[in-house]
Amino acid sequence: MTRFGTLFGIGVGPGDPDLITLKAVKTLQTVDVVFAAASTKNEASLALSIAAPHLRHDAQVVRLDFPMTRDQAVLDAAWRANADTVAAILAQGKSAAFLTLGDPLTYSTFGYLLRTLNGLLAEIPVAVVPGITSYQAAAAHTGRVLVESGESLAVVSGVAPEAELEAVLGAAQAAVILKAYKNMPTIRRVLDRLGLTQSATFVTRLGHEGEAVFASLDEVPEKPSYFSLILVRRG
Amino acid sequence: MTRFGTLFGIGVGPGDPDLITLKAVKTLQTVDVVFAAASTKNEASLALSIAAPHLRHDAQVVRLDFPMTRDQAVLDAAWRANADTVAAILAQGKSAAFLTLGDPLTYSTFGYLLRTLNGLLAEIPVAVVPGITSYQAAAAHTGRVLVESGESLAVVSGVAPEAELEAVLGAAQAAVILKAYKNMPTIRRVLDRLGLTQSATFVTRLGHEGEAVFASLDEVPEKPSYFSLILVRRG
Repeated sequence: MTRFGTLFGIGVGPGDPDLITLKAVKTLQTVDVVFAAASTKNEASLALSIAAPHLRHDAQVVRLDFPMTRDQAVLDAAWRANADTVAAILAQGKSAAFLTLGDPLTYSTFGYLLRTLNGLLAEIPVAVVPGITSYQAAAAHTGRVLVESGESLAVVSGVAPEAELEAVLGAAQAAVILKAYKNMPTIRRVLDRLGLTQSATFVTRLGHEGEAVFASLDEVPEKPSYFSLILVRRG
Repeated sequence: MTRFGTLFGIGVGPGDPDLITLKAVKTLQTVDVVFAAASTKNEASLALSIAAPHLRHDAQVVRLDFPMTRDQAVLDAAWRANADTVAAILAQGKSAAFLTLGDPLTYSTFGYLLRTLNGLLAEIPVAVVPGITSYQAAAAHTGRVLVESGESLAVVSGVAPEAELEAVLGAAQAAVILKAYKNMPTIRRVLDRLGLTQSATFVTRLGHEGEAVFASLDEVPEKPSYFSLILVRRG
């Protein structure tokens, strides 16, 4: 019977190399193989550059590419190929870390990997090390409270349908809108209808060149960077 | 003019001493004073025990007590006294770390402190170091995805009013219900009405004695521990 190595889902945090946990560092120091997956090369490179100082000198680094597409069949095929790559290495008894920016269970591709490995998961030991999310880093950077006792916090994707955005933002006292870039006109409309425009702070490219914080949505460019989010809290 | 020292809001993570960030460790190594505040002595002690190995040997530790009450006037008075203590130390030019379990801007008392210091905040340099939350640790422990691409995540307090719980949980695809203890009958009712009972995982006392995970709410005791939460994700 095959004795699989452990698969670690490791959150390396939002980008600042010091926002990684001691547990992630200690785990990275032990693994045989490191997987970096991302739809963009930049994200994989950033995750790897955060992990690199903590890796064993003989650790093997493997990139898992997946195409930037909404075609589910193409994505599924890419993930099956990636899962086969991961499974083949674990089947050699090697331990492996799958890196994700932020947290491995919050809008991460680690969930896809687990699902694709599904048939083997009963045999593969899996452990997850959580990571600081982009929105926690944005709140820390701006000194804004995300959510306080008695309130509720909604975390939504800016690319969600307008009706869903409105329902979720309308029900909670505080919110984070991730991926606030291509749908900015929709997001503005929803915040406006809910009377939340004055309660919103826009944060873009935190920790990267072009980093900016806008206290007013009026100042936000029509086509912001992909790495943009909005923090909302009712006054 | 008084030159205030920097006030650091430090998230020490959910309880596992290794789930603290390198940034928190490096910051704790520099500060003159450490403040630990909590409504229960246990929480303050836990935060301090996580921070202790990283402190300077001559660091001063100050406990900020606040009463376990819902009486806003009593709480306000306690916070004014605590803010005065903090301000007096910072006014000596000393740097200080205010510890919180989890994240300083997510259901933390750090927000109260900032609000109470409000009149002085223009002069006091403040920096926040984010921390891993209890619900990220619970997701990691159970290997459950919190939220995936295209979905929304609601983070709510189990002590919220029933109508609010239902509105927030009804609008999002995934949810975390914190403080799932004294209101369990209400929470069960709401999850039941929304058809989410089978999608819920109950996690209690993670990392402490009595730690348990229940895949079915039927097995959950009627009066669980204060340190309990529920992870929900629509199948």
